[in-house]
Amino acid sequence: MFTLYYAPNTCSLASHIALEDAGAKYNLRRVDFGKAEQQSPDYVAINPKARVPSMITPRGILTETPAMLAFIAQSFPEARLAPIDDPFAFAEVQSVNSYLCSTVHVAHAHRMRGERWVDDPAAIVAMQRKVPQSVGACFELIERQMLKGPWVMGDNYTIADPYLFTLSQWLEGDGVDFSRIPRVIDHRSRMLERPNVKKAVAEELAA
Amino acid sequence: MFTLYYAPNTCSLASHIALEDAGAKYNLRRVDFGKAEQQSPDYVAINPKARVPSMITPRGILTETPAMLAFIAQSFPEARLAPIDDPFAFAEVQSVNSYLCSTVHVAHAHRMRGERWVDDPAAIVAMQRKVPQSVGACFELIERQMLKGPWVMGDNYTIADPYLFTLSQWLEGDGVDFSRIPRVIDHRSRMLERPNVKKAVAEELAA
Repeated sequence: MFTLYYAPNTCSLASHIALEDAGAKYNLRRVDFGKAEQQSPDYVAINPKARVPSMITPRGILTETPAMLAFIAQSFPEARLAPIDDPFAFAEVQSVNSYLCSTVHVAHAHRMRGERWVDDPAAIVAMQRKVPQSVGACFELIERQMLKGPWVMGDNYTIADPYLFTLSQWLEGDGVDFSRIPRVIDHRSRMLERPNVKKAVAEELAA
Repeated sequence: MFTLYYAPNTCSLASHIALEDAGAKYNLRRVDFGKAEQQSPDYVAINPKARVPSMITPRGILTETPAMLAFIAQSFPEARLAPIDDPFAFAEVQSVNSYLCSTVHVAHAHRMRGERWVDDPAAIVAMQRKVPQSVGACFELIERQMLKGPWVMGDNYTIADPYLFTLSQWLEGDGVDFSRIPRVIDHRSRMLERPNVKKAVAEELAA
């Protein structure tokens, strides 16, 4: 049994969907960002980074979405969420997830979390101004180079799909031009038709 | 046989060291940032992100350091560069690497690559001002919470070690206070005593 610490509208949704896809048994624990619960002593004891997601497992605590997604895929091989027996194919999946984590999510974070990298209020506003362009450029690269279709890696659904879906939830807020990324938008719609995705999204919004 | 595309003083050093540690056969190809070779059509055909590292393998091209490091560890199991048969322990390694990639490297990049996230020159200067603090906070977290010692994961050297070492090469330039991270500095010295590390560093500087 796992316990996933999550917050609505954050990247924890990717692991939440993957747990559903894996058929894992898990509890959900919402971290209330409105009350800055992620910075509470109790939560920082779980995740010293004071962020979501975190996942408690029988072996210990895991953080960082790419690592958690790979762990879920490897722990439930029968769910076939990644080509775990083929190091090259697995690395291709992990490469997409690493890009989503370190480049796409980071570009997005300059809209809401600019204080991580700058103190000057005018600079924070300047950062926000570039988000449609910087996030848009990331998604255009995904559109052209990464998203094979119908799923990220092609015919086989993998842990890259809930992660891309999660970040593509933020496209409207980031002001990205949809007309340049029709295949990404199609992927998002295709994901939303999946019962596991509907369930995870509904659970997060209901809590 | 692999071909690693690298540039001196970048994160490609981590994969370079790991290839040495693995006993892999590989060619090195320097990408000349001084001539903006990373943006040349030939290189963008290899890596559309126009960054290093990239690695050509018999199966295709890989990018993104965490994915490449995991691939190297899984491709050379006899080198024991990660606990690849234990999904939880492997995820712990990957969690460190994901943090290094998405948080530590990103904080550092605000010193040299601010134009990724902002256009205003004053905002770029404001970003640079915060780098000692933001990178410093990352390394203090590593010091307190991640670096078990003597290696990142404890007694066993893993792919997290060349990656931490690579990012810790930039501490002086980032203006981080060494007195607060003695164990990180020790780890850096310990790494520099390893013949494979010496060889990789010397090869990159000599090219």
